[in-house]
Amino acid sequence: MKCALLQFNPKVGDLAGNGAKIFNLTQKAWKKGATLAVTSELALLGYPPRDLLLYPSFVEEARLKALEIAQKLKDKDITLILGTVGQTELGRGRALANQALVIASGAIEAVYAKRLLPTYDVFDEARYFEPGQKPLVIERSGQKIAITICEDIWNDEAFWPRPLYALDPLSDLGPFDILVNLSASPFSVGKQQLRENMLAALTQKTGAQALYANQVGANDELIFDGRGVWVAGGQVLARGQAFAEDLLIVDLANPPEPLPQDALGPEEETWEALSLGVSDYCAKNNLKTVILGLSGGIDSALTAAIASKALGPENVYGLVMPSPHSSDHSVYDALALSKNLGLAQTSQISITPIMMGFDAALKRLFQNSKPGVAEENIQARSRGSLLMAVSNKFGHLLLTTGNKSEISVGYCTIYGDMCGALAVIGDLYKTEVFRLARWVNREKIVIPENTLNKPPSAELRPDQKDQDSLPPYEVLDAILKCLLEERLSPKETAKIHDPKITFKVATLIRAAEFKRRQAAPVLKITGQAFGVGWRMPISCRSVFTVNK
Amino acid sequence: MKCALLQFNPKVGDLAGNGAKIFNLTQKAWKKGATLAVTSELALLGYPPRDLLLYPSFVEEARLKALEIAQKLKDKDITLILGTVGQTELGRGRALANQALVIASGAIEAVYAKRLLPTYDVFDEARYFEPGQKPLVIERSGQKIAITICEDIWNDEAFWPRPLYALDPLSDLGPFDILVNLSASPFSVGKQQLRENMLAALTQKTGAQALYANQVGANDELIFDGRGVWVAGGQVLARGQAFAEDLLIVDLANPPEPLPQDALGPEEETWEALSLGVSDYCAKNNLKTVILGLSGGIDSALTAAIASKALGPENVYGLVMPSPHSSDHSVYDALALSKNLGLAQTSQISITPIMMGFDAALKRLFQNSKPGVAEENIQARSRGSLLMAVSNKFGHLLLTTGNKSEISVGYCTIYGDMCGALAVIGDLYKTEVFRLARWVNREKIVIPENTLNKPPSAELRPDQKDQDSLPPYEVLDAILKCLLEERLSPKETAKIHDPKITFKVATLIRAAEFKRRQAAPVLKITGQAFGVGWRMPISCRSVFTVNK
Repeated sequence: MKCALLQFNPKVGDLAGNGAKIFNLTQKAWKKGATLAVTSELALLGYPPRDLLLYPSFVEEARLKALEIAQKLKDKDITLILGTVGQTELGRGRALANQALVIASGAIEAVYAKRLLPTYDVFDEARYFEPGQKPLVIERSGQKIAITICEDIWNDEAFWPRPLYALDPLSDLGPFDILVNLSASPFSVGKQQLRENMLAALTQKTGAQALYANQVGANDELIFDGRGVWVAGGQVLARGQAFAEDLLIVDLANPPEPLPQDALGPEEETWEALSLGVSDYCAKNNLKTVILGLSGGIDSALTAAIASKALGPENVYGLVMPSPHSSDHSVYDALALSKNLGLAQTSQISITPIMMGFDAALKRLFQNSKPGVAEENIQARSRGSLLMAVSNKFGHLLLTTGNKSEISVGYCTIYGDMCGALAVIGDLYKTEVFRLARWVNREKIVIPENTLNKPPSAELRPDQKDQDSLPPYEVLDAILKCLLEERLSPKETAKIHDPKITFKVATLIRAAEFKRRQAAPVLKITGQAFGVGWRMPISCRSVFTVNK
Repeated sequence: MKCALLQFNPKVGDLAGNGAKIFNLTQKAWKKGATLAVTSELALLGYPPRDLLLYPSFVEEARLKALEIAQKLKDKDITLILGTVGQTELGRGRALANQALVIASGAIEAVYAKRLLPTYDVFDEARYFEPGQKPLVIERSGQKIAITICEDIWNDEAFWPRPLYALDPLSDLGPFDILVNLSASPFSVGKQQLRENMLAALTQKTGAQALYANQVGANDELIFDGRGVWVAGGQVLARGQAFAEDLLIVDLANPPEPLPQDALGPEEETWEALSLGVSDYCAKNNLKTVILGLSGGIDSALTAAIASKALGPENVYGLVMPSPHSSDHSVYDALALSKNLGLAQTSQISITPIMMGFDAALKRLFQNSKPGVAEENIQARSRGSLLMAVSNKFGHLLLTTGNKSEISVGYCTIYGDMCGALAVIGDLYKTEVFRLARWVNREKIVIPENTLNKPPSAELRPDQKDQDSLPPYEVLDAILKCLLEERLSPKETAKIHDPKITFKVATLIRAAEFKRRQAAPVLKITGQAFGVGWRMPISCRSVFTVNK
């Protein structure tokens, strides 16, 4: 039996566009002899549809679109397993289910409803769906095919120390030969290996083969990397593209040699993921060009490099905005970067006249005070407003360049350098920014050496260095990982790291919560990014509040 | 039997502070002869604790604090039903439960786990908790007392057309005399009546009495109004304070005359709710003073009035920031308002020098373009930056003054008038802003008549009126209600309202999604506010996208 994994990049909510892609890929698969085609999870809607699901008209349109696809396929000898939303048949409980439709001969032959609904991190499936109550095993060419959706196969007691769900949907499937899984599993660094290990264990345990179809494409903060696989006997026999659309057709009767591990290293994965994040954000919002502030520092340099890879440098605009506190090298480094990348245009605008305007306006009110944070922030906000003005004038999307370390401790100005529609490297700690920047430079120098080597500085006052206010980034990032990702308390972290620094960092994290609530969406590449997967109260005694 | 409802204002995460309040109130109740005391839901933690729950150290501290409270009460003849978090005893599923501990004689006598976990709108309980599997009925003074938590009693098939949960926890309780409910039910206009109707129906159906304890106080966007009640035979026999702490002690053996309906009308409820929202946001973030921009318009006027009620006018600062496009009356009206309210200080700063600074900076880049949105936004952002500068300098919290109508259609400038930590009237449509402002003026004129009577204008260009860009607010707001709250599609809405206007409004809603993602938290007073309860994708074909 030939099977096809339809790995395509859906636009969330675009039922017509996604439906057309699904039909075309299915038809193509059929022409190549496939008799089974499998989409990713909720493929007709695009994942995650979020509150679009609360609109009954949208759900009804999806129902009609699925019927239309079924009709159009009716003369083709191929079964399509289609991920979509549907109504439950019960009179109680949530009205919707996350479904896989078995479409054959022009009709919906069977319906499977996802049984495990992820509701953690960025996932809110219990907000929308009623869990399915029973397994579905269909038969094709004498093979028993068990149908599952994403999370359904991620609760294996042997694989997880503490299963998150009481039920393991694999436990009551009965005998089956092929396990099909429709997924929308977001990318994080190293996740493909985890998926393949888990599927390998599953095929070894059950003796069945596994066909895993995953979504590709980025939707707001979530990046999906595709890489559908065919796994049998603990080995990966075929693997779809990473970060690209693919139609993977496999012949179950003719298993090839097993494949080696996926070749992408962590830097390359991150690079591909973030550039897909930028290009899809632009494409799906109908924008062609982006702008960003170039400070001569490493964050804006890396962001510009990613944007250039994503959109082509001809669609990336830079703005260099020196103040009286800017060093000469910052302008020089920014212009060198722009030249190395070949950006469309990099303009230079001094913010001095704007700062003078603010000085004049505030002279009377501020007359008895010393310059401090208020004045520093005026610089950052003047730059933010300038970038937004150029964005508004020419229709470039503004990218924000903050990294995870500074978003964590609030070493950034709200409505200033936090301005922008998308935080490209907001899930990379500063040490990881350096690592990725060096990787970018691995063959030729794109990011100026001086940018990589000078001590980081916000340049908001003369001779300022980040390290005047913050611990060294190696120390900071290690503490942040404990507090944010390991979910240790400041006290617990202080047993591993310097207590004084730890308590200072925790206090800074707590104080920055109100800023993060208004931050741009962050492209997520780790298990814990800021944004929709980080839901902290602002008005509270926080876990980061240090006991006095 | 005398019973006490402990209606207090917890600070989220403040286990020591909340624990002390709970102990003190229980002791006070005991001194007054109560033998049963009931807290609100998760009272020890404050609701909603959100991702604080993901920190094991926090959950462990809560466990120890509950034991400490039990110890301290051990010689007192009173049973405390305490809302808190606890570990489940299963080896599978989520590790936590939303619990009610039955504390008596220094020990935890029984544990009830909430069975229905709200996961919609602002609620994310399935993110954290495993649902309880069984009912709990305890006995005190020969009375059978059934214990429930909030949502558990909101799934009555007779009361809701389509119950949201398959299970009704009231159905397997067996016989009981008293139903106790620990709640954290957020305020919305008119909700108390719904609660009381539901409890009345419940007591009539079961023949039991009901004791309903609800949280009071505001935490970020959520406002809790308290109003615990004792209900029997379909009648409300006692009712706690609205929007204030209370210790309501009732003697079940001596039912008094039934109470009439709650006396607060919708405007008074809204007024009290929003002022509690402001005062608690400040108190719980250790801030005393606020600042806001006064434009002479009705939004900033109403926000200033609410802030003055919340914090005292001596803690409210105004900033009037005219531009060359500002009319004389706007400054005059703003200053009159400030005087009427008795604000601490209202400074006047012209933004002309700042606009000149931006003009100078952008002259070359903008030389061939006509003034438009970019220039209008520069004005709004200059004001936003000025407000933030004064906020940074003097430590005043910046309030943002946008209303729900403008946040809906994006008639507001991101990083401009959207600046601020809290959106006070962001859940009021413009027509409701007018209604509430007139109510504020019911006895004497606080908000200048001219502010109420002049046509709304953003004054970003000469003689601009809101109605140049937007339909009349009565029309706009009616359409918004259909699209946002009734969850009708633009097509469905166009059957009720003018299609051309409807499609324009829908297009504006869609285009403003990226702004809303970065908006300040909005004090929620309706069933559908923007903020944590509004989870729309940005990069998508939206339900608001109009078919071409």
